[in-house]
Amino acid sequence: MADRGKVAAAPSFDASDPLLARAAWSRVAEPGDPVAGALVTHLGAPDALAWLYEAAADASPFVPGALARGQDRPAVERVLRAVERWRGRLAVLDPVREMRALDQLGGALLVPGDPRWPTSVDALGDVAPLALWVRGETDLAGLSRRSVALVGARACTEYGRHVAADLASGLVDRRFTVVSGGAYGIDASAHRGAIVAQGRTVAFLAGGVDRLYPAGNTDLLRAVLDTGSLVSEVPPGSVPSRVRFLQRNRLIAAFSRATVVVEAAWRSGALSTATHASALLRPVGAVPGPVTSMASGGCHQLLRDAKAVCVTDVDEVAELAGHVGADAPPPREGASAPQDGLDELGTRLWDALPLRAYAAVDSVARAAGLGVDETLGGLGHLELVGLATQSGGRWRRAARPSQGVGSTARGG
Amino acid sequence: MADRGKVAAAPSFDASDPLLARAAWSRVAEPGDPVAGALVTHLGAPDALAWLYEAAADASPFVPGALARGQDRPAVERVLRAVERWRGRLAVLDPVREMRALDQLGGALLVPGDPRWPTSVDALGDVAPLALWVRGETDLAGLSRRSVALVGARACTEYGRHVAADLASGLVDRRFTVVSGGAYGIDASAHRGAIVAQGRTVAFLAGGVDRLYPAGNTDLLRAVLDTGSLVSEVPPGSVPSRVRFLQRNRLIAAFSRATVVVEAAWRSGALSTATHASALLRPVGAVPGPVTSMASGGCHQLLRDAKAVCVTDVDEVAELAGHVGADAPPPREGASAPQDGLDELGTRLWDALPLRAYAAVDSVARAAGLGVDETLGGLGHLELVGLATQSGGRWRRAARPSQGVGSTARGG
Repeated sequence: MADRGKVAAAPSFDASDPLLARAAWSRVAEPGDPVAGALVTHLGAPDALAWLYEAAADASPFVPGALARGQDRPAVERVLRAVERWRGRLAVLDPVREMRALDQLGGALLVPGDPRWPTSVDALGDVAPLALWVRGETDLAGLSRRSVALVGARACTEYGRHVAADLASGLVDRRFTVVSGGAYGIDASAHRGAIVAQGRTVAFLAGGVDRLYPAGNTDLLRAVLDTGSLVSEVPPGSVPSRVRFLQRNRLIAAFSRATVVVEAAWRSGALSTATHASALLRPVGAVPGPVTSMASGGCHQLLRDAKAVCVTDVDEVAELAGHVGADAPPPREGASAPQDGLDELGTRLWDALPLRAYAAVDSVARAAGLGVDETLGGLGHLELVGLATQSGGRWRRAARPSQGVGSTARGG
Repeated sequence: MADRGKVAAAPSFDASDPLLARAAWSRVAEPGDPVAGALVTHLGAPDALAWLYEAAADASPFVPGALARGQDRPAVERVLRAVERWRGRLAVLDPVREMRALDQLGGALLVPGDPRWPTSVDALGDVAPLALWVRGETDLAGLSRRSVALVGARACTEYGRHVAADLASGLVDRRFTVVSGGAYGIDASAHRGAIVAQGRTVAFLAGGVDRLYPAGNTDLLRAVLDTGSLVSEVPPGSVPSRVRFLQRNRLIAAFSRATVVVEAAWRSGALSTATHASALLRPVGAVPGPVTSMASGGCHQLLRDAKAVCVTDVDEVAELAGHVGADAPPPREGASAPQDGLDELGTRLWDALPLRAYAAVDSVARAAGLGVDETLGGLGHLELVGLATQSGGRWRRAARPSQGVGSTARGG
């Protein structure tokens, strides 16, 4: 075994305090560490932490039975490797200072059991967040109840920006919280659209909530604080890293009722959010775009792979996220034609009727390819609904007021 | 019963000739008449026609058992209503003249059994075409073998026109026949794209093949004749009608191996082609477009309803229509990053490694949230693949030639 570096023999804080212990765990383990999740779940955060201090100082520690039944070798080794991962961070652990830093920013540390904890993230199981560091509105339970994640690429187009802002503002009108990642591009447009519409929006950050990262979004993230929340699972002072960005995406997916990818190219990180949502059986939507735009390539792939539903407006997004019925989209209105709603017989006859000059029944029947009896019956029905008119036993189309019967619609 | 008008007691041509009898039926019955299809299938066209002449002159004709088992009342009435439909056309029947008209245009009348008959349309069963009037290349069997229908709205956008022409030319490069309806808009762009690429294209017309309808497409349809075929199931002299346009769409769907809707609004007739293809279990594709464009609304609805696969380029269309394997699309190429292909451990380490200054192993381990042993092993692997370099036991990233290792890719 290689040199293990310095290890703190005991914590410098009250590790029996459940809140402090959770805070400590959120610094010791990287986001999404399943071994940490399992330990904390089975032992509780304080006992799991006490065990870790002992294990870190012991050459061959005893692994709790819940994690390695009968000291099963692969399971034991998995936990011991985790201890190796965590060991280096024990020495620098100072959750009291980090909580003080959060307090000074007016934030709150949420842990499971707090009524403000968003239970939607518990669906992540062993990779659920160990704690959530929150600034702004701290009632994440309330914010998640009716929420949609709008995500997408930083390298987006004007089209994507427009659609993201438009969907965000429409979702706000329907009382949804707009969730995103605070990044440039689609994320920023989604937050901004919600703010402009005076709605609530939540940004999940990959680094600590003390860092308004990226720098170019500082003003935007300040505005998010005024109308919603900044949330992170790593303590203040933590830097955003590539792995943390990817893990952050699972939180966005788990927190929200539905996830919509607005614009994303083939390799965009936003697709990982969709994958997480899909794995959690949460509804996933993708906004289509021009096939000539690389920026929509990832969305189209989601549609091709049937990993997302095609969504084109806010009604369809609300339907995806909301309760069926209350949020069902209104029926589409297309350009309507007077003959709409006729059965095949009616359509044939309407089609065969002359526009101006009157025609005899047998001539109409021949043109329609129908029998004389059928034609007479059908013309009677058309007359009844105001689509045909007769004069001396001869027939032509009738023009219903305000509908352009004069021009025949031809199928494409 | 109403006055039945004049009825020809006997045909003015040799109704025992199978070709003439089919030609006659294609005038007597409107396209897609299932009773005519069943009669011709069960009795053969000549006997079915002979029966019709008798039945038209008889107040209560005997209905062939194959169409009404045990003279079942609803079935009998269905056939008698059909006789009423057909009666008016018997008097004006002149298939010899219509075949002469086709002959003067250099065309051919195809019927089932002819080696040039496209057997793909037989899948339509009782509503299969009774005959096909063809101008240009008459080997429809050959043309249909490897064919894709590109359909869409007349009222299309520049985007739709561009995509249609682009797909058509790419399909030609892959030796596909491009099938469409000869209409304005998407249809015209599809035919034109195939012609420009010097490929084969087939236009199914709603009226007779002697009429190059619509008039604005006369030159285009002449060009189609030079490189492919004009096809109709109604004889020369027949006018296109709304019902015939809709029925024509079923032929396009049945003839082709796959149908792709390039651009179509909510109520576009092109959607009926997709519905027919779907009913025949033929692959259906839809090209997405901007959600801000009404002209793509129908395509998006097909995607939402899972009635079509999202297709964005010619490779995906070829895959839809072709044989799996030979026509599978090539793997996508996105912008690649040096750390692509690394596992989670490698990614974490690569992410934690400094760009220029060298760092000690335990510092790298802490930054990555990994144990020292894991870190040493992982760094060795990174060194092996040229992504890390060490100096005196301290590590930093290595820049592989020609790859931009200097800029860290951040997840969206």
